[in-house]
Amino acid sequence: MSALNKLTTLERLLGYSFTDRKLLSLALTHRSKGSKNYERLEFLGDSILGFVIAEWLYKEFPKLAEGKLSRMRSSLVRKETLADVARSLNLGEYLILGEGELKSGGFNRDSILSDVVESLIGSIYLDSDFEHASEFIFKNFSDNLLSISEHSNFKDAKSQLQELMQKRGMKLPTYSILETQGEDHEQEFSVECSLPDMSVTGLAVANTRRNAEQKSAALVLEQINQNGFL
Amino acid sequence: MSALNKLTTLERLLGYSFTDRKLLSLALTHRSKGSKNYERLEFLGDSILGFVIAEWLYKEFPKLAEGKLSRMRSSLVRKETLADVARSLNLGEYLILGEGELKSGGFNRDSILSDVVESLIGSIYLDSDFEHASEFIFKNFSDNLLSISEHSNFKDAKSQLQELMQKRGMKLPTYSILETQGEDHEQEFSVECSLPDMSVTGLAVANTRRNAEQKSAALVLEQINQNGFL
Repeated sequence: MSALNKLTTLERLLGYSFTDRKLLSLALTHRSKGSKNYERLEFLGDSILGFVIAEWLYKEFPKLAEGKLSRMRSSLVRKETLADVARSLNLGEYLILGEGELKSGGFNRDSILSDVVESLIGSIYLDSDFEHASEFIFKNFSDNLLSISEHSNFKDAKSQLQELMQKRGMKLPTYSILETQGEDHEQEFSVECSLPDMSVTGLAVANTRRNAEQKSAALVLEQINQNGFL
Repeated sequence: MSALNKLTTLERLLGYSFTDRKLLSLALTHRSKGSKNYERLEFLGDSILGFVIAEWLYKEFPKLAEGKLSRMRSSLVRKETLADVARSLNLGEYLILGEGELKSGGFNRDSILSDVVESLIGSIYLDSDFEHASEFIFKNFSDNLLSISEHSNFKDAKSQLQELMQKRGMKLPTYSILETQGEDHEQEFSVECSLPDMSVTGLAVANTRRNAEQKSAALVLEQINQNGFL
């Protein structure tokens, strides 16, 4: 397939046709090809993605606290999530890599694939406007956005963790304060959450004991979810 | 001054009149006052600020590499910069704090002041649109944006540091590789930049020796600038 045909195919996959095809090429070009590469576009695209996801979370979950929103955003924009999006768009085939990266399988490396999702967002924004960039994000992140909505049952982390343990007939989580630091108005609590029946722990620091317990429970839940335990 | 008059004065300082004054009050309310506080707005405002600054840097410095843009953004959105903006707007006087924070001087704490700049950005955005939020940012960050432009002479960090040392008649910086890690295509270089005449060092890791040297030089420059040495 010629380079031009290839870009046309990619545009179809992206659901967006570029006025300036050079922007599309740049968004696909890894630094192993030279100093004219996707990194500046990635910088821009990352900030657009951050804003679009933050606004969506803010409006979708009007009752959730900031800490929870931040954790949800981190999980939506983390490297693995972006690399999945890249693979669903088959982006690996369109990367423009230097010799070395080409040989060593750069087209399938999470770090490069995730970068390119962000550089594409940046390039669509520059080629058109915020609305098109935002549309691209919602189209390609819809599965992730949907699943985060379904899993967010609005219960706090401690309750979720307790219910999970009860459902599995396992011993309930325990919380221990490891340290208290600082003066009265700026105290910090370090709390560790442990599961007696599993070798999973979560250590968190926060300004109140309650918050530290919630954060430590959330960390344990994340580990359980990510590692597919239970 | 009545609470209502106070908000009117603040709106004048902000250069923006709210349709929904409750958003303005919320943006000023610290968590020491309860669970209805500015933190969700801060989450949103932070992402708007990140995007506005990223786009400005991207367009203002068409030749700078991503690493440099990222460092510039960090310096523009860091706590101290935001707290300065808050002080220039006299925000401390308008904070809505709980008893404890009030007594312990929360109205002058950098962390709270910087949060509130972001929550105000979020509240202006929700009350109106992106344009108004963006206008607020440019008006209040103009000094910082201007000074970052003037200091960015487009010279790379190593050259800047070398010239600075020469100008002061000091010994030139040295760079030593501390470690090389990883396989061929994913090598990482740890480089330390030291100034023989001053006890300042910078340690950086990057994918090439050259990049690691540049990053370590940039870290040393930052320390010199921040601490007002020389």
